[in-house]
This record gives sequence, C-alpha cells and structure tokens, in this order.
Amino acid sequence: MFQKNDDSLMLHTDLYQINMGKVYFEQGLENRKAVFDLYFRNMPFRNGYAVFAGLERIVEYLENFKFTESDLAYLKDQGYDDAYLNYLKNLKFSGNVRSVKEGEIVFNNMPLLQIEAPIIQAQLIETALLNIVNYQTLIATKANRIRQIVPNDTLMEFGTRRAHEMDAAIWGARASIIGGFDGTSNVRASKLFNVPASGTHAHSMIQAYGDDYTAFKAYAETHKNCVFLVDTFDSLKSGVPNAIKVAKEMGDKINFIGIRLDSGDIAYLSKQARKMLDAAGFEDAQIIVSNDLDEVTIMSLLQQGAKVDSWGIGTKLITAYDQPALGAVYKLSAIENEEGVLENRIKISGDPEKLTTPAKKNIYRIINKSTGMSEGDYITAFEETIDENEPLLMFHPVYTMKRKRVRNFEKVELLHDVYKDGQCVYEHESIEEMTARMNRGLDLLWEEYKRFLNPEKYPVDLSTKLWNIRQDLINKVNDEMDDEYDG
Amino acid sequence: MFQKNDDSLMLHTDLYQINMGKVYFEQGLENRKAVFDLYFRNMPFRNGYAVFAGLERIVEYLENFKFTESDLAYLKDQGYDDAYLNYLKNLKFSGNVRSVKEGEIVFNNMPLLQIEAPIIQAQLIETALLNIVNYQTLIATKANRIRQIVPNDTLMEFGTRRAHEMDAAIWGARASIIGGFDGTSNVRASKLFNVPASGTHAHSMIQAYGDDYTAFKAYAETHKNCVFLVDTFDSLKSGVPNAIKVAKEMGDKINFIGIRLDSGDIAYLSKQARKMLDAAGFEDAQIIVSNDLDEVTIMSLLQQGAKVDSWGIGTKLITAYDQPALGAVYKLSAIENEEGVLENRIKISGDPEKLTTPAKKNIYRIINKSTGMSEGDYITAFEETIDENEPLLMFHPVYTMKRKRVRNFEKVELLHDVYKDGQCVYEHESIEEMTARMNRGLDLLWEEYKRFLNPEKYPVDLSTKLWNIRQDLINKVNDEMDDEYDG
Repeated sequence: MFQKNDDSLMLHTDLYQINMGKVYFEQGLENRKAVFDLYFRNMPFRNGYAVFAGLERIVEYLENFKFTESDLAYLKDQGYDDAYLNYLKNLKFSGNVRSVKEGEIVFNNMPLLQIEAPIIQAQLIETALLNIVNYQTLIATKANRIRQIVPNDTLMEFGTRRAHEMDAAIWGARASIIGGFDGTSNVRASKLFNVPASGTHAHSMIQAYGDDYTAFKAYAETHKNCVFLVDTFDSLKSGVPNAIKVAKEMGDKINFIGIRLDSGDIAYLSKQARKMLDAAGFEDAQIIVSNDLDEVTIMSLLQQGAKVDSWGIGTKLITAYDQPALGAVYKLSAIENEEGVLENRIKISGDPEKLTTPAKKNIYRIINKSTGMSEGDYITAFEETIDENEPLLMFHPVYTMKRKRVRNFEKVELLHDVYKDGQCVYEHESIEEMTARMNRGLDLLWEEYKRFLNPEKYPVDLSTKLWNIRQDLINKVNDEMDDEYDG
Repeated sequence: MFQKNDDSLMLHTDLYQINMGKVYFEQGLENRKAVFDLYFRNMPFRNGYAVFAGLERIVEYLENFKFTESDLAYLKDQGYDDAYLNYLKNLKFSGNVRSVKEGEIVFNNMPLLQIEAPIIQAQLIETALLNIVNYQTLIATKANRIRQIVPNDTLMEFGTRRAHEMDAAIWGARASIIGGFDGTSNVRASKLFNVPASGTHAHSMIQAYGDDYTAFKAYAETHKNCVFLVDTFDSLKSGVPNAIKVAKEMGDKINFIGIRLDSGDIAYLSKQARKMLDAAGFEDAQIIVSNDLDEVTIMSLLQQGAKVDSWGIGTKLITAYDQPALGAVYKLSAIENEEGVLENRIKISGDPEKLTTPAKKNIYRIINKSTGMSEGDYITAFEETIDENEPLLMFHPVYTMKRKRVRNFEKVELLHDVYKDGQCVYEHESIEEMTARMNRGLDLLWEEYKRFLNPEKYPVDLSTKLWNIRQDLINKVNDEMDDEYDG
C-alpha cells in the first residue's frame, strides 16, 4: 500500500511553500513577521453574499502544526539539508490569527482571515487554509441559496456518494447545515459534528424483497419511523398504493412519516401522490423528493404546484455543481523590515482585479441605527479608530464618486482573535450558533442584496486612509519600474 | 472541538444503509448474498472514454472494515438496540470484490466493480465506494483529456487550494497522475503516493523582498533549480528581465529551468518572453504557465502560437470544473433466495436510462486480432463462456438492429479479484503501471472514440443470454404490476 504511517497535514501544502521557507531560513528572514489576508474576489453563484465556514477545521489543523518524523524523512529524501530540516522539526506555530466567525455573512474583497506570523509559518499554512475555506464557504453559501427558496421546508443533504472524496462529504455536510440545512444522510458527519442524520431505505431493499409491499412491511416491522421509497417499479401503480396499504395495516405501530420520490416527473407524481395519501386519510404524511435538485429545479417545481414537504439535495449541493470552486486567495499585505517595523506591500497584476490592498487591517460592519440595517462593510488600517459620533464617509474603492456619509451608526468588528502569539483562544461553537449568526447577519441586509438573481452589490469600502495607502504604493511601484526600465 | 477520537470510516455511509441493515438483521436476511454492480450511466465531459481510478483507496477502506467503540456508542445514542449493535460489532467483511484495475479505460454502463457479499455488508460499503470511485475516476478522466491536447509537454497538478477539502486534493493529485499528468504541487500527495512534486516560489516572496531582482537572487542563492515567477509587478518590464539578469549573474551556480507566467495575456506574454529568453542565450529555459487553464484554454493558446513548455493546471482539473460529478451508481443485480440460489433482480424506473441490468456478470474487451483494435466490450452472464473459435454476435442493447459478427478475436477479462471470501488478494501497483495500462488501453481504441469533441460511441454490449435475462425480467415485473393493479 501507499505510505500512510505517521501521515500528518504539515505537508498538505504546495511545494513552493517549503522552498520559499528554505530561502527565508537561509537568508535569515525566517522570523520576520508577515501579515496575510485571506479573501475571495468574486461572489460565488453571483449571489449577493456568502456564508463563511471552515474555521473549526482550521483550528484543528493549526493545533496539529508539527512536522512528523516521516514528513522530515520524506523531505530529506528530496534533498533538503539537515540545517533546514532541523529548523522545521522544531517549528511551532507562534502567530496571530484573526477570523470572521462561522456562519457570518461575508462578501468579496473582505478579509475573512488575517494571519500575522513569522513568514515561514504564514506561508506553510497558506495552502491548507485556502483548501478549507474555499470549499466550506462555497458549500455553506450554496446551501443558503437553496434555503432561501424554501424557508420552511425540511432540507436534507444527501450528497456523500457524489462528493469529491471523503473529507468533502463530511465537511460539506457540516457546511450545508451552517448554511441552513436541517441535516445530512452521512452518519459519520452526524457523529463528528453532532448534527441530525436521516434516511430509511434504498431501491435495493425493494429489489431484495422482490416487491414494494413485502419490503415496506419488513421495514415497518423493524422501524417505528417509516418513510417508504416508492419509485422502484412504478410510483403510482405500486409504490404509493403499497405504502398506504402498509401504513393502514400497521396503524399506530408505526409513525408513517411519508413517502419519497426519487425519479420521474416529480411535479406530476407529487401532486398525484398527495391526492392518494389524502384520500387514504394520511393528510399528515409528508412527500419527500430527491433527484438532482438545486435551487432552480426547486423553484420550477414550486411554480408547477408540486406538493413537497421535504427535499433531499445531493450532487448539486455537495459539489456546488454550477460553480464548483470559490477563488479565495491569500495575499501578503505587510512584512516587518530589519527594524521590526511593519512595511506595507502590494501586488500589481496585469489583471486589475488581482490588485491587492496593502496593510494590516480591521473590518467593521456599519449598522445604521435608524434603520437597523447594514450600510456596508468598512475596512480600515489596523491603527485607525472610527468615531461613532462623527459622520463616516463611505465610498466605492474603484468608482470613488459613489459615496455617502453615514450618521448615527454602530460599528461591529468582524475579525475575532483565534490565535494570539501561537496560543489558541478559539472557543468551540455549536452549529446552531453558527446558523443563528447567519440568520442575524441576513436580517441586517436589505432585500436588494439577498435576491436570487442579479442582487445589488453590497458595499465593501476602504477607509480614506487605507485607500490612500494603497494609492501611494501603486504610484511608488510604478515609478520605480519606470525609473528602472524606461529611464 | 468536534468528536474525532476513534474516528473511523465505518459510519462514512448514508443512514439508510444502517437502517436497511437492521431490517435484514431482524428479518433473518443478513447472510443472504447479494450481487451489486458499480457503474456510471453517462460519460463525463462527453468524452469517449473514462479512466478508472480509486481501487487502492477502496482496498484501504475495506481493510479497515470494523465498527469502533465510538461508532457503536453513537449508534446506541441514536436508539439502535443492543442486539443489532452487537451484530455490527462483530461484523467482518466476508465478501468477494472484483474490479477493473486502476488506469483501465472504461465506459458507461459497464460494471467497474462487482460486489458479492452478505447484503448488509454490501450495503454498508456502497456509499464509500461510490464516494471514492466517482471522484477519482472523474479526475483521472479530466486529466487525460488535458493530456491528449499536449502529449509531450509537462503537466503539473496545482489545484490543492481549490480542491474540495483535503482528501480531494491528495486523491485528485494521484488520479491526475494516473490520467497522464507528470506531478503535483501537493507535498503530502508526493509523500503518500511516491509521485513527483514541483514548485519554487509565489508572488508573496517577491512582495516580501520588495522587488523581482532581490527575490530571484535570494532564491538562486538558496536553490540549485530555479523557476522564477515573473508577473508580480510587470512580466515584461520587470519579471523576465530580472530573471535573465539573475540567471546570467549566477551562471553555472544554478540550473535556470525557466520562468512562470500566472496572469495577463498568456499568449502574448509567452511569445515575448520566449524572444527575450532566446535573445539572452537561454534557448533551453522553459516557459511554464498557469492561471485557470483547462484543455480548451490550452488549445486556444496553442492555436494562438503561445510558447509554452509546461502547464500548471489547478482549479479546472481538481474540481472537474465543467462537470464536477460523475454519476456512478451501485445497483443490486441478484440476491440469494431461501435455498441459497442467486435470483436475478431488476429496477425499472420512470427514467428508461435508469433501468438496471440483472444477474452476476463478466465483462470482456473484444480485441480483433486482424486489426489489433478493440471491437467493444461484451458483458455476459457469469456462467456463460465465450468460444473464441466461433464468430461473436455483438449488438447494441437498445437499438438491437445495430449488430456485427466478430471473427478472429481475443477476449480480455476486465474484472479482477480484489477480495475472495473476505480475503484481500489485491496486489499493490505503482502509479507508473496504472498510467502504462491507460496508454495500452488507449492504443486499442480507434481514433473516432478518442477525439476531443463528439466522439463516436464505443460499444458496450450485452450477450444474447444476458439481454434475454433482462428482457424476461422486465416482462415479468410489468405483468405482475398489471395483474395486481389493473386486473
């Protein structure tokens, strides 16, 4: 088999991080503190907001920040020298991590995490942090899009078999629930994260017994709570009538929750099944549907008058099928100079949208006290203070003529300490707390930011000071390049 | 933190598997052997073939088939009774598994794995097997599509930060290499699977040093092999000239492999960079590019005359961006009756494509000895024999008038024993062996099946006997339903 003894996540990183680390180590820069921002540039699914998830996994990862013997042996085999390996062997995470909390409503170009650590450490963890946040935030956001369409129905995550390997299945299940789902079919996720699991039986059980009636009856004799899957042979000819027959025969011995439809014309079948169940006196029996559903197919089914109480969402959720990647990046915004003073840094790209915002930052949500609604997010340089007694000038960071002065506001800080000087100060939260945070966050947003299609763009603004820092650095870099090559 | 002591993969399954297991256990059906086929119905990416991957991970999973104390404690908390839990506690995998080998060229509607096991066991492993095969086969196939466009260039998998959590990053890296890639940026994947890793430095290193020249120089003083990333500020004004400057200054002290472009107009920049490198005497220096590439963007760049030697492929590969799920399913095809005789079973769905093919099977690739090329795959009932001295009738399983008689052929069996009565008989293979198998498999296919767009459909046929078994069972089920509900 493959090498898996002593597997650790320290090498779950891109090789260039190890190679840059060697440069910093040999050049004596290993202890220079650097500040990195983790953020994404474009909204997933063209949604008006995203739901942040992944922090608990990051904490678990950082708590195990230690190269193992086999990690070091592998690196030695690759030709890394003993001095560097010895340095890595003794490396402990000693940095600061600030992060938005899970379930928080977040936007593009807003730092979700800020890492301030000796540059080697900050680089070594980059890849894993992005790997975690990109996926979990993507799925929490996708789940929330679906939740917005059916605020009151039951939504279950059913996607394990189509997930991108095992971690995606369980962390995707968790992210779905943060984003507003009620539970998952994945039992391990239920165990690990203390979230509800659901599921009764598959088509194979009907096939094993040979017919719907015998199979439903066997299930009902074994389990109190019964949902019968009715489409193995023919939903209306066999599945629904036999579900009703068994429910009548068993009476109070079972809790006949309802039926599940997994193929065919769900709109038609659900309406017919509803009539049949009602006619048999099972008005409370639920109709549960599944079969490659997402927010668009659900809207279509609702528009057709489908009679559905509960939705099982698989492939399209767990893979974020219509946009399977969030493009979060991790960019250096400042680094200590020889005197230990933070210097701001920028990256200027051929693609204007890839321009970075320099400096260590704070991020505030600006709540208008008159309306109780958010005016936007406001990013400042770290050392800035905001006086809530003065009007706050908020302007678009590119189209600067788009501006407003906000009065009578409250500022809410979005980044919270997770690590201080390498010490974990994170406090575990329940998924319920995260979902509650999400709902509170959505309550602060005007409807225009929340609509399903073509939402208005929520303001994520820079303070005047931070905007000037960025502009000055752009000018400086451009001047230097001109001096060197055209002068 | 979340519950992770004693984590195991036994609960990495859908809850309905546990609930069906309870039915079988209480009804005394737990030891009935059932046969399940694992297959997908539609080709991913509309490609003409797929590349199978995931078997080694499946073997690792099955070798750890055992409920742990915490698994059982969780289930007890959920209300499962002691008799069933005690049964699960002592459960060992005792079944047969046959599988195609990794790297094999495979097609839709062809069983990739066949499981024959007591029905509880076969059900418990369903979800994990699908989770593994769906992702790994998808990525191996996507990687191969890219490989077909650039048969001789270097292809590196760079996608970890956009992968769907950590397992996807490492197993996707491995699948990419099975499918024809040369290596990965993921160091852990390199360690676990003994595959090449590559990567030098990121934009952040340039930012940390403040300018291209100082950063490249620092790298060159630390590492022998140098690839300089040139687009942090301006590729042509600063990046490439400084890479050349450092390469000249360092001379033989470094191995100047080349430069990497990660943004901007790759077609234009690569041509300009090539000229600059050539003019400076670095004709052998490679140009490596990355930035949301896939097989279509690569074709476009080649068509524009881009000068590229090596490609780093991230997001679009590791997430299979244009089709992020393979829809493999796991369907019951036979089950023992009370006398211990296998009875064939079928599932008839409202969707005709979801019709299953009953019976325990064998699968052969039929090679025409005159041409050396494959005539198609041929699925038989398990007990059938094929006489290579007689002409073989091959016909389309739906459009049966599409038929041919093949003479002078060789049959190659595609399913190989992996478990026999619970004993693992799998032999570890190197990734090189899998890639070689893929290449041999492709050599058997006419070009028409391999083209990038609108490939011809490769025949996956049923034997006359198996076709009749299926047809008889369809008729029988339909007759029974008609008798019961319309009669």
